[in-house]
Amino acid sequence: MKKRIYLDHAATTPLDKRVLKEMMPYFGNKFGNASSLHSFGQEAKIDLEKARERVAKLINAEPEEIIFTSGGSESDNLALRGIAYANREKGNHIIASSIEHPAILRTVEGLENEGFRISIMPVGKDGFVDPEKIRAEINEKTILVSVMHANNEIGTIQPIEEIAKICSEKNVYFHSDAVQSFGKVKIDVKKVPVSMMSFSAHKIYGPKGIGALYVRKGTRIKPIITGGPQERKMRAGTENVASAVGFAKAAELMHAEMDKENKRLIGIRDYLIKELLKISDSRLNGGPEKRLPNNVSIIFKYVEGESLLTMLDMEGIAVSTGSACSSASLKPSHVLLAIGCRAEEAHGSLRISLGRANTMEDAEFVVKKVPEIVAQLRRFSPLGKKDF
Amino acid sequence: MKKRIYLDHAATTPLDKRVLKEMMPYFGNKFGNASSLHSFGQEAKIDLEKARERVAKLINAEPEEIIFTSGGSESDNLALRGIAYANREKGNHIIASSIEHPAILRTVEGLENEGFRISIMPVGKDGFVDPEKIRAEINEKTILVSVMHANNEIGTIQPIEEIAKICSEKNVYFHSDAVQSFGKVKIDVKKVPVSMMSFSAHKIYGPKGIGALYVRKGTRIKPIITGGPQERKMRAGTENVASAVGFAKAAELMHAEMDKENKRLIGIRDYLIKELLKISDSRLNGGPEKRLPNNVSIIFKYVEGESLLTMLDMEGIAVSTGSACSSASLKPSHVLLAIGCRAEEAHGSLRISLGRANTMEDAEFVVKKVPEIVAQLRRFSPLGKKDF
Repeated sequence: MKKRIYLDHAATTPLDKRVLKEMMPYFGNKFGNASSLHSFGQEAKIDLEKARERVAKLINAEPEEIIFTSGGSESDNLALRGIAYANREKGNHIIASSIEHPAILRTVEGLENEGFRISIMPVGKDGFVDPEKIRAEINEKTILVSVMHANNEIGTIQPIEEIAKICSEKNVYFHSDAVQSFGKVKIDVKKVPVSMMSFSAHKIYGPKGIGALYVRKGTRIKPIITGGPQERKMRAGTENVASAVGFAKAAELMHAEMDKENKRLIGIRDYLIKELLKISDSRLNGGPEKRLPNNVSIIFKYVEGESLLTMLDMEGIAVSTGSACSSASLKPSHVLLAIGCRAEEAHGSLRISLGRANTMEDAEFVVKKVPEIVAQLRRFSPLGKKDF
Repeated sequence: MKKRIYLDHAATTPLDKRVLKEMMPYFGNKFGNASSLHSFGQEAKIDLEKARERVAKLINAEPEEIIFTSGGSESDNLALRGIAYANREKGNHIIASSIEHPAILRTVEGLENEGFRISIMPVGKDGFVDPEKIRAEINEKTILVSVMHANNEIGTIQPIEEIAKICSEKNVYFHSDAVQSFGKVKIDVKKVPVSMMSFSAHKIYGPKGIGALYVRKGTRIKPIITGGPQERKMRAGTENVASAVGFAKAAELMHAEMDKENKRLIGIRDYLIKELLKISDSRLNGGPEKRLPNNVSIIFKYVEGESLLTMLDMEGIAVSTGSACSSASLKPSHVLLAIGCRAEEAHGSLRISLGRANTMEDAEFVVKKVPEIVAQLRRFSPLGKKDF
């Protein structure tokens, strides 16, 4: 069988064997419902609460500030809808950046249809939100600002410390989608006055179907899934103990290995960027600084990104054009448009997101293959230079 | 180690080894994001869609009528909020039964606060909803009726065929929470004109954190978790392929073994009911007919249910008083109150819910222990006969 090189860790990651090992007892005898009063239930409850403590500790939060959810999208929805519906009397204005994940953008669009006023903040050509522009946009009706910690397509790490401080001064809630940054960029909620942060396990070698929302004590928020009193009445449904424990383990491993792994990934990343930019008519998306250690995002003009992806896939190399969530869509990436790409250019983007299994040899193979395929595609491309 | 007998399968079930075996590949090499276009993603997508077909087939639905969710509570919320928000212009009246799961009752309460009008339909002393009372309650503003298929506390199987027909005639959507009945009672959505049904995997020896909502084609519904276009834009978030496949396998096993296993469980159930009712001042909750094959729910007067549960737990027997979801609450069960129990009586209820591993020997042990403990508790009970 041909070797396959997975370079799409921003979409999802394989489950770490050490994580699976911690999950296995819950697929066996430790199957109790954490809300049951008998010993099966209480065993599950204890491990669930330990998992909560383990996750909380990594961001210096209190355990009761962690709400387990089914993943990043639910966390984002809970943050936005939860704040909007609980603070309607205070105001109806919400601010988000133009490069947020669809779980934020589609949700604020939904809230707009329900009568909320939404400001979408532009980003600069380098893919960063300007905190001062956010400050200027806040008014007496503003209840929430949502700016992601790191972008899923172009890897830019946003100045959330400054934005959090501005929101704190102005007495406005601040949410940050940290799905891509968690485990790669250190977060200390005692130092950064963020009100809420979204996390997901499957981006950090944990299981799919579990995530969390950090909610600072005192934050006024309503649940979106109501019913039983689980998660301090903030999220009804039988607790997924196996996955919560897996999430905790995955997060711990990421944090324990962060410094060393980041350094290793940055080495591979910068090699890829340097070599791939040697291809003519190519451009890096997002600035080279303040960038996720595992993200490479490059536009090759006169190339259809989907064709590039397909041909690389035939060579055993798995990459993406934009994000997985929008991959089935024919629309150009909203992130690339936001940083000033023309629609035709945005179609020709390549995202490589590195992970634990990747080596410098993988990168060398990519650096060998991509120029060949780009050249080949350009020879047959209907996207002639005249269109640009 | 002392033998432990788990008799709380209505709260949750252990994961079937055959289910885990089908899930394992997705914890290994088949980890792709089903929304990714490369081969890792496409492999995941194929298996996800197969899982959807497998679940659909069991209820005679079309695959595109199955929306995977994070579980029963989310399915219930999606059904209720989804219909309410999408059909506000048509009407604002919703009908639910008084014995629904908290995921329904808390959600209709929430909708009431948002301006919807809610009718809560009483049930008879035997725990059944009267379809004709529902017919009489429907008016021109009614958009939705929600009546569970089988009750989680007292095991009564509701006449949803008749209610579905009435709703269909009246052109009102009908939702049924089938979390407790799925895999125990046959459902054919081509024969029963139900609009939506909620399912959960962990009640049928599948994994926690996954469920589904059946949504009949043409049903006007809005998502509650917005973002990426997953699940036909009805439920954003990276697809949990491992759990969807596990859910499909668990559901198939339940259906394949249904007739034989139901017969076996009914034998044990009826033995338990017969023997436990020999205890003085005891009463069966819910009628003996149209009852889940695995449910025993009995009230012992002058006994505190929680004490009974704790003492049985010390003997290695895991049961519950009401449902797991409300077990931490000190309030008497709303279901028992709805069938006419007095609050003091409702505190003395015992729910035994049988499952695959249970044998007649387990039942014999229960039949030996319960009378001893009930007698012991009554001797020391502050709930003297004078209170009743």
